[in-house]
Amino acid sequence: MNISLDRCCIHTITTKPWSLPESVDHYAAAGVKGISVWQNATEGIGPHRAGEIIRQAGLEIVSYVRGGFFPHTSSAGRAQAIDHNKKLLEEAAALGAPMIVLVCGASPDQSMQKSREQIREGIGAILPLAEKLKVKLAIEPLHPMYAADRSAINTLAQANDMAESFQSPFVGVAVDVYHLWWDGDLEKEIARCGANGNLFAYHVCDWKVNTIDMLNDRGLMGEGCIDLKKIRGWVEDTGFKGFCEVEIFSNIHWAKDQHLFLKEITDAFVEKV
Amino acid sequence: MNISLDRCCIHTITTKPWSLPESVDHYAAAGVKGISVWQNATEGIGPHRAGEIIRQAGLEIVSYVRGGFFPHTSSAGRAQAIDHNKKLLEEAAALGAPMIVLVCGASPDQSMQKSREQIREGIGAILPLAEKLKVKLAIEPLHPMYAADRSAINTLAQANDMAESFQSPFVGVAVDVYHLWWDGDLEKEIARCGANGNLFAYHVCDWKVNTIDMLNDRGLMGEGCIDLKKIRGWVEDTGFKGFCEVEIFSNIHWAKDQHLFLKEITDAFVEKV
Repeated sequence: MNISLDRCCIHTITTKPWSLPESVDHYAAAGVKGISVWQNATEGIGPHRAGEIIRQAGLEIVSYVRGGFFPHTSSAGRAQAIDHNKKLLEEAAALGAPMIVLVCGASPDQSMQKSREQIREGIGAILPLAEKLKVKLAIEPLHPMYAADRSAINTLAQANDMAESFQSPFVGVAVDVYHLWWDGDLEKEIARCGANGNLFAYHVCDWKVNTIDMLNDRGLMGEGCIDLKKIRGWVEDTGFKGFCEVEIFSNIHWAKDQHLFLKEITDAFVEKV
Repeated sequence: MNISLDRCCIHTITTKPWSLPESVDHYAAAGVKGISVWQNATEGIGPHRAGEIIRQAGLEIVSYVRGGFFPHTSSAGRAQAIDHNKKLLEEAAALGAPMIVLVCGASPDQSMQKSREQIREGIGAILPLAEKLKVKLAIEPLHPMYAADRSAINTLAQANDMAESFQSPFVGVAVDVYHLWWDGDLEKEIARCGANGNLFAYHVCDWKVNTIDMLNDRGLMGEGCIDLKKIRGWVEDTGFKGFCEVEIFSNIHWAKDQHLFLKEITDAFVEKV
């Protein structure tokens, strides 16, 4: 079944060449209803004013991106990461974002197990502030190709385990098809987080068969091999009614006219998501 | 605990610029005891003669690489893949290799589930010949970044499930650290295949934190972040006494003097594996 643009949210990084006011104006004019705000997009504006601009345009703020990166071999590094995440939570509150996305981090200089323990400690350290500010924390598992230095949480099962361990309505998971499409346990794990209220966010793009850059060559929906409708079906089978967030890092798409790209996004959203 | 060069096997692809006779001579002179032969290395020589050259130099043939690639959307494509794998089995027997490694394949034009079913059918179709020729089939799970078109088997759990389903001493798994190091279930799954006799092969290299090419930028042992000694410990805890096979695809290492590279390999093997 096709999906309405009413459920479309776009991450500001997707149209990186645009400023936040430009993104807001153009998304709203295109009929997009939600926006997820990357921290860099608020530079020079500040989160409070950014929130006003977005709400004036009639867009809903879905998430603030991104916290995390908790693991460090030094305790000073870990303390700094916790402070940084607390600052992000304050910014999210000022922005009016109900959630921050956590790219949890990893250190190639220690075991994955150790990094996962430090992620748990980090989330535990910022959770009281998150609860006080009413800003949710969405743990986003990252593709295993990012396991060395970006995230030691690489499957939805691991993210679900981590989220459930906190037993807080303010800790859940973000499901991003780019990171998880390959996983044979995906259907089961989506059902699991959906059933216990931990499915906080759903991100879409596509996996290009001949990916040429491990970070910035994500595909527009339909350009790759992910069965987006099947995965959205699993997400919606849990009762999820939130936005489908378009998050594309792509040197190729960033190099083109962003008005054209936005048109491609909204067309692909309705047809392919 | 350090490991002896007596347990060192090298895949011919690792020193791709060398011909098979060159690789054989130089590996043997360096004290390496095993060789895994890629099909391209026997071109112009043929598998039978290649086997003679290798045995004359006192090297043990560990595996013939590589079969698989069973999934195709067309039945003609699948039949062709099965024929090709039967030919590979005959070549392995002529070479005197006790095992072929299966890179199982995937098709971006169908579901992972469908590809896995076709892998199962393909292995089933060649197993009688493998048993007749006494050539084992080692299912090698590939890193999830290869899930679109190289393998729909991306974790050791999936490979173990697949191997166990055949209940044959001729179907097992190959554990390659490059593909599996990130997996939180790796220790458990190594113990599982080790316990039931399905752990056929162990491959080493390293994962570079800043990988610049998804296919040909593997690291020499010690260049990356994989805890090789820990994983070898898990493998040997199962009673595995086979070779540790060095398999490195690297544009960077292929571009250098291969004598220097071989010295780096043998040094790294003893110190880092």
